[in-house]
Amino acid sequence: MSYKNFPMVSKVIFGRGSFNQLGEILSPNRLNMNAPFIYIVDDVFKSYPWLTSRIPLAYDDRIIYESANEEPKTSQVDKLVEDIILGCKERPSGIIGIGGGSMLDLAKAVSIMLTNDGETKDYQGWDIVKNKGIYHVGIPTISGTGAEVSRTTVLTGPSKKLGINSDYTPFDQVILDPELTKNVPKDQWFYTGMDCFIHCVESLNGTYLNAFSKSYGDMAYEQCKAIFLEDNLTQEETQDQLMMASWHGGMSIVYSQVGVAHAMSYGLSYVLGTKHGIGNCIVFDHLEEFYPKDVKLFKAMKSKHDIELPTGICADLSDKDLDTMISIALSLEPLWENAIGKNWKKSITPKKLKELYLKM
Amino acid sequence: MSYKNFPMVSKVIFGRGSFNQLGEILSPNRLNMNAPFIYIVDDVFKSYPWLTSRIPLAYDDRIIYESANEEPKTSQVDKLVEDIILGCKERPSGIIGIGGGSMLDLAKAVSIMLTNDGETKDYQGWDIVKNKGIYHVGIPTISGTGAEVSRTTVLTGPSKKLGINSDYTPFDQVILDPELTKNVPKDQWFYTGMDCFIHCVESLNGTYLNAFSKSYGDMAYEQCKAIFLEDNLTQEETQDQLMMASWHGGMSIVYSQVGVAHAMSYGLSYVLGTKHGIGNCIVFDHLEEFYPKDVKLFKAMKSKHDIELPTGICADLSDKDLDTMISIALSLEPLWENAIGKNWKKSITPKKLKELYLKM
Repeated sequence: MSYKNFPMVSKVIFGRGSFNQLGEILSPNRLNMNAPFIYIVDDVFKSYPWLTSRIPLAYDDRIIYESANEEPKTSQVDKLVEDIILGCKERPSGIIGIGGGSMLDLAKAVSIMLTNDGETKDYQGWDIVKNKGIYHVGIPTISGTGAEVSRTTVLTGPSKKLGINSDYTPFDQVILDPELTKNVPKDQWFYTGMDCFIHCVESLNGTYLNAFSKSYGDMAYEQCKAIFLEDNLTQEETQDQLMMASWHGGMSIVYSQVGVAHAMSYGLSYVLGTKHGIGNCIVFDHLEEFYPKDVKLFKAMKSKHDIELPTGICADLSDKDLDTMISIALSLEPLWENAIGKNWKKSITPKKLKELYLKM
Repeated sequence: MSYKNFPMVSKVIFGRGSFNQLGEILSPNRLNMNAPFIYIVDDVFKSYPWLTSRIPLAYDDRIIYESANEEPKTSQVDKLVEDIILGCKERPSGIIGIGGGSMLDLAKAVSIMLTNDGETKDYQGWDIVKNKGIYHVGIPTISGTGAEVSRTTVLTGPSKKLGINSDYTPFDQVILDPELTKNVPKDQWFYTGMDCFIHCVESLNGTYLNAFSKSYGDMAYEQCKAIFLEDNLTQEETQDQLMMASWHGGMSIVYSQVGVAHAMSYGLSYVLGTKHGIGNCIVFDHLEEFYPKDVKLFKAMKSKHDIELPTGICADLSDKDLDTMISIALSLEPLWENAIGKNWKKSITPKKLKELYLKM
């Protein structure tokens, strides 16, 4: 038996308004005046000066706005890295991701690809990265993805949707400022929060579970129930607790693994471009046979917050597209092994997944 | 408002038997064959070859056995550092602490004092350390202290009992192997477990509490209740969960602070040499007015496990000793501010502490 030696985020700061300390946190990490800090920021913030005006720009520092409308791509990382190399006098002092899981994953991937040769797609997998990335900072503005603590960055490449999993992926610094989540639209808040809830369900019901993962999973699971099913919290408390639940839910899966919803959601995303949060919800809604108690809870949460999920999204798919979707989902072997056990191939067949996808 | 930017342990491995991976974990960190790994090991393990025979010694690596019968002292750290410098051809590749809070704190302090000039006592306080310590690894063999995650190392010096609190204090690597706790005597198991319970109580009832500390504190508090008051866990589950509770309890206080029990226990320890775990228990047993619900729970735990605490330990103290004890306790201002609030000096007077100490 061999256990994972898990790299943690080096430094974390938590608190409402802690975003104001960004300049002070970054300044000891500035290499010189020609080595800028590059901010990768969700482009929805273009219209929110309450956030962007507080980004401390000096020397050649710059903001790159990216859209989170599509899941991050390996080609997008390659382009960002090329632009940064061409546009900077020296290798940057640091990369700062500000946004949801997409911006955090882009920041992690760009940091790695600035110090590793070749194309991003060549690093999708486990422990392929050779060189430490440059200093990188994650600042979530929506809670649930766990991208702020994970050792992966999930990217869609030409042949697969798969993370760059490495000891160099986790952030050197995370800033957890719950106030930054105040403008999240309700639907997005729900979908991304459910990403956290589903992380916990998949971890707690998985065969890989150990006491480490269970303690984090239990905690985040209880917080999600309090946030999405009860009415005892103020709005600020809800924001604070969901940010912590995301963190703990992320810690729970780094030591175990996700399961059925994530495997099938990756298939949806690869073929239809479905975003991760809503994709997980669409799938999870149909997983009673795998997670009966928690799908029931999920439906109660959905109803309490008046969330309507799209239906029939796979109905008009060609056989070829369905086959691709199924093959992407089945390729995520550790997820299935965690969810079902070593003999998962006996029950999880292409036919079985086709039936499930056609319900969605 | 300014928030703490908290440094986390860089790498953590959890699992029964993960201690067997120590050689593999250390080897990439060996600087050269003249730069040994130094193990600081609790001397109770001299008679436990099941542990010591698995310590991977090579080249000039060596084991230093230290007693945990007394709380670690600054002079003890100075002596260890001198012996290591005189006895090694080069500065060590790493320091590995194996034992309870005392061994972990010694390992942290030695790592720092190998790269910082002067005497250990000069570094007792907050953020005085200038240079990064050498690579250091913590391997707890008893659960509850939280020393495995904290940014402090608590030492008794010539004029005070106070930690070296710094960003360089936390371990670079922690190995959480619950199997290593199997030989802990029952009394010690209880006292050290209660250190964790009291961390949670003091954090959760403190004025410094935030959502970060609360989520860790809630989790560890529930785990302690399950471990010490219920009968639903196997022996292995108890060991696993208490090791995680210690970790989470430690995380809860690094972002907030401890309280009345720790402040008064430091006084006992300074004057009478009372060890930290039992000292906390002796004090906490008399703190109904500060933590009514939890002192009741503590008494129930004590009774369930047939624990008898010493009584009358302050009865024969001279006035001078009592005054020293009181002044050590009162000097820990952040602990009192956390426990009582900004105006703590109105209610926490020397007279008040004297009354409390005389009950113990």
